[in-house]
Amino acid sequence: MKKLSLLELDRPDVEQFKKSDKNQIIVVLDNVRSALNVGSFFRTCDGFAVETLYLTGITGCPPNREIQKTAIGATESVSWEYRENIVDAVTEIKAAGYEVWGVEQTNQSVMLDRIEMSDQKIALVFGNEVDGLSEEILPMLDGCIEIPQFGTKHSLNVAVCGGIVLWEMIRKRK
Amino acid sequence: MKKLSLLELDRPDVEQFKKSDKNQIIVVLDNVRSALNVGSFFRTCDGFAVETLYLTGITGCPPNREIQKTAIGATESVSWEYRENIVDAVTEIKAAGYEVWGVEQTNQSVMLDRIEMSDQKIALVFGNEVDGLSEEILPMLDGCIEIPQFGTKHSLNVAVCGGIVLWEMIRKRK
Repeated sequence: MKKLSLLELDRPDVEQFKKSDKNQIIVVLDNVRSALNVGSFFRTCDGFAVETLYLTGITGCPPNREIQKTAIGATESVSWEYRENIVDAVTEIKAAGYEVWGVEQTNQSVMLDRIEMSDQKIALVFGNEVDGLSEEILPMLDGCIEIPQFGTKHSLNVAVCGGIVLWEMIRKRK
Repeated sequence: MKKLSLLELDRPDVEQFKKSDKNQIIVVLDNVRSALNVGSFFRTCDGFAVETLYLTGITGCPPNREIQKTAIGATESVSWEYRENIVDAVTEIKAAGYEVWGVEQTNQSVMLDRIEMSDQKIALVFGNEVDGLSEEILPMLDGCIEIPQFGTKHSLNVAVCGGIVLWEMIRKRK
């Protein structure tokens, strides 16, 4: 068994990636406080060929040294947008034909392993590390997704959570 | 739709969690440099009720301020061990009846969506953020798992990668 180099992995370069077909998935980070988490999302959105990453509210934007620490260049490849207001962002995304799902523990959330997703255009909204999603967008959502958990803590780290939910979407599209 | 509080989520407390049945999954962090990543793994191992988290080589251990920043208390609930030498750790884990799989891009890796896992005892080894797994353990492994990726970067953040692979194991056991 031999580890593969970056060359052997044959990844696209930034220009090739920008021109390539993406998964019709939008990620929205709503008031995410930690720039390290934002950078980590950039890297995950690169890896899973996400259409666009929306940053809203207090979520930091590139160029930003902390984002760069964890994005390691993925801010160059991933297409991103900033909107001050999450309601405006969700309205715009819905108008473009995307279903919009929050990732949040609510009284109506569907567990991730029971989500039925096929090839529809979907946007996933992730909220603040402590407070979760903004209350005002809950009525606008097509639903919420929850990751089943068995531990003592309220939730997983938001960037880890993002990786898991995106993987599940990608896996179902493959 | 209404967000759920920690109380409504009805999570176990640390004592209840320690006594509860775990998933027969061990996580091994081999030379993970960033204590923030280590802390994030603690939180994920709590959420997915992992049996034991092994920390080996240069991987930092609690008590550690940076680990605590991202573990947010999960160092109290998750059972963990330190071994200086990864070969000793893998030998010990194999002797306890666990299959040991690396998470690494190799010429023989199996893609995560094609992994056949049922209820066997399994250990997952994650390596250094830059250099990946230690070369000397490659011949000791039952196999390697790779997360399919479509972007410009070599790989995902190791803590994000951990969340994804653990979720896939948990999903298949449910």
